[in-house]
Amino acid sequence: MYAEILTIGDEILIGQIVDTNSAFIAAELHKIGVSVYQISSVQDNREHILTALKEAESRADIVIITGGLGPTRDDITKHTLCEYTGDRLREDKEVLRHIEYLFSNYISTPISDLNRKQALVPSRADVLHNAHGTAPGMWLKGRRGVLVSLPGVPFEMKALFTEHVVPRIIASYDRPVLLHHTLITYGLGESAIADRIETWEDALPGHIRLAYLPNLGKVRLRVSARGTDPEAVQEDLDRYVGELRDQLADILFGESDGEALEATLAKLFTARGATLATAESCTGGAIAAQLTAVPGASNFFLGSVVSYATGVKKDVLGVDPGLIEAHSVVSPEVAGAMAEGARKVLGADIAVATTGNAGPAKGESDAAVGTVAIAVSGPGGTRAEVFTMGNHRERIVRKSVHKAFEMLREEILKF
Amino acid sequence: MYAEILTIGDEILIGQIVDTNSAFIAAELHKIGVSVYQISSVQDNREHILTALKEAESRADIVIITGGLGPTRDDITKHTLCEYTGDRLREDKEVLRHIEYLFSNYISTPISDLNRKQALVPSRADVLHNAHGTAPGMWLKGRRGVLVSLPGVPFEMKALFTEHVVPRIIASYDRPVLLHHTLITYGLGESAIADRIETWEDALPGHIRLAYLPNLGKVRLRVSARGTDPEAVQEDLDRYVGELRDQLADILFGESDGEALEATLAKLFTARGATLATAESCTGGAIAAQLTAVPGASNFFLGSVVSYATGVKKDVLGVDPGLIEAHSVVSPEVAGAMAEGARKVLGADIAVATTGNAGPAKGESDAAVGTVAIAVSGPGGTRAEVFTMGNHRERIVRKSVHKAFEMLREEILKF
Repeated sequence: MYAEILTIGDEILIGQIVDTNSAFIAAELHKIGVSVYQISSVQDNREHILTALKEAESRADIVIITGGLGPTRDDITKHTLCEYTGDRLREDKEVLRHIEYLFSNYISTPISDLNRKQALVPSRADVLHNAHGTAPGMWLKGRRGVLVSLPGVPFEMKALFTEHVVPRIIASYDRPVLLHHTLITYGLGESAIADRIETWEDALPGHIRLAYLPNLGKVRLRVSARGTDPEAVQEDLDRYVGELRDQLADILFGESDGEALEATLAKLFTARGATLATAESCTGGAIAAQLTAVPGASNFFLGSVVSYATGVKKDVLGVDPGLIEAHSVVSPEVAGAMAEGARKVLGADIAVATTGNAGPAKGESDAAVGTVAIAVSGPGGTRAEVFTMGNHRERIVRKSVHKAFEMLREEILKF
Repeated sequence: MYAEILTIGDEILIGQIVDTNSAFIAAELHKIGVSVYQISSVQDNREHILTALKEAESRADIVIITGGLGPTRDDITKHTLCEYTGDRLREDKEVLRHIEYLFSNYISTPISDLNRKQALVPSRADVLHNAHGTAPGMWLKGRRGVLVSLPGVPFEMKALFTEHVVPRIIASYDRPVLLHHTLITYGLGESAIADRIETWEDALPGHIRLAYLPNLGKVRLRVSARGTDPEAVQEDLDRYVGELRDQLADILFGESDGEALEATLAKLFTARGATLATAESCTGGAIAAQLTAVPGASNFFLGSVVSYATGVKKDVLGVDPGLIEAHSVVSPEVAGAMAEGARKVLGADIAVATTGNAGPAKGESDAAVGTVAIAVSGPGGTRAEVFTMGNHRERIVRKSVHKAFEMLREEILKF
């Protein structure tokens, strides 16, 4: 079965916001075996929405629509859905009560007629309760399949989608079984891998697909198997992954069910009862921010010293000024001293430190833009490495965070 | 004139990656007066791409295509562009030399035939030099307008788009003048504002548009004016913004040309020669990470103590344990002491501190999930406030960072 995602709102088409909703919806649909045929972003414009609905319905069994449900006049999704399906709006008493409840308890401005109008829904639509906001979700019959309309505010949309839309899709549709497994390789480019596995890839049957996902020096190879019988699909997947694994044994770095590295670290540190601290210069707090984005980070993460200025490295982390003088501030020696300082000052079992030049201008060190030293210190000692990360500021930080996570993983596995 | 954006790649349709490219392209086009009619994400599939190209060309003068230019066989954009335009591939000598140069200087794996094939381009396409990667950009005549094909790797695409595509669009097309101005209001919901300005909004002529952009308690009102004569458009914009400003005077919080708050702070701190430090508990380094994402952050930002664990608040920031005992770790008193500690320990003119409970479980404090205390300390003293930020972890952090930036802006304006 196919779904399409339709996002409505001028703010996407002028680039004011990044459409993160579609990726969330696509990933959730994918998990339950629903393929997304196309994602389209259209304007807050009646004719445009009508055309897009018709086109999407011609290709898919269900169309998930987000946005355009606000109280102001630039939001026209509900009216347009009525026009499209030949329906009219009715006031939903329960939604109205919920809106009044939200206003009297959580919203400081007085309720207005425009807010009350958010209780209007197409008369034949099933209302999906939006616990977090005033715009309800709607499940309705389109001209050919099903239309689901959700608010564009990400956290309202996510809750509605997970709690109401996913269970209803599972109950309403037969879906194929779709399983994935990812092999992570390191040390060979995607084209070199493709050359090596050419014969195997040529012989893949139609229900097995391979995707190359190169990222930060690694190439992830995602194998997907599709079918109707869960056991047969799993068997097929295992067989083809096994064959691929044999051919890539020398460059295999890991395997993945899609979990982020910081979530893996959180589990490893928590399971071992180890604590972690960071000392960050060029990453500017990004390692700490990503670690603490994982719920339960307080179980193992103590804190960080973001020592952007050299003075902070000396005064707070206790790095010897002579060491900085002798090796420059971007050096494995200083990274190591920072990691050891963080361990000591914050009282952690393991610490990671970064120092480098993220550009665009050279800093206090002579190191070229993109040079980053990363060190990990633990009970068994300290080790540091120097990397060249290109010349793109955002990318240098991202790569450094990733590399720090990898070094931490190696360290905690020894703990 | 209209553009469309077409992103090609299964990884978007299964939600594996968020499409940030489209927002970047849309924003850049918008700046030069090009309206984006629709954004579509389609599969790595010949028929699907052909249909999408035809549909996009029927609506727009230029179609910007990203993705599907990798060396492996799942990337079919170039072949499909040839099929669509009735062209054939030729090898471009300069691109080939560039690929060989990249491989011999920056890429550790040996070059293969698949890599060399990236030098194949449609024979009638103009090649756009990709300094950062092996897949060139292409500018070619479609069936009706212009097609531009760019690699999907964000930093390669961004450089190509800014350096090659934008100048060429400016040189090739007459574009309308499109100007914007945003008023930021605080204290009234979007529907209450809409009620108040109803008469004014009703009377807006077609070339003036108003958009409501509610976010984190504020409502931003973006006024857009369109026309052909730059001076007349600016005059029109000023007049309508002036009228709107008069009606919203009591709730006007600020005005904006779209600059991010952290970039504003960077300018203000740098201009005043003031230094900044942060002490972060519930924001976990996110304030520091966002500040240091701005190039030149080292001009004013000294560093941060991420004191996730209570022990770090005491030992590194010097917060009095008695204060924590008396007021709990999530309190304006402790936030204030953290900010003062950060100022002192890091030697900064101004410091901001956060302490709160981002959930999902209650921490060491009795404070409810979503309670956050934020303090700013400067030469004139310390002030702290307590906020209720909802119960969504990611959102609590994001709101806290935003609020910290606002408090810092007020503080640095006094400096």
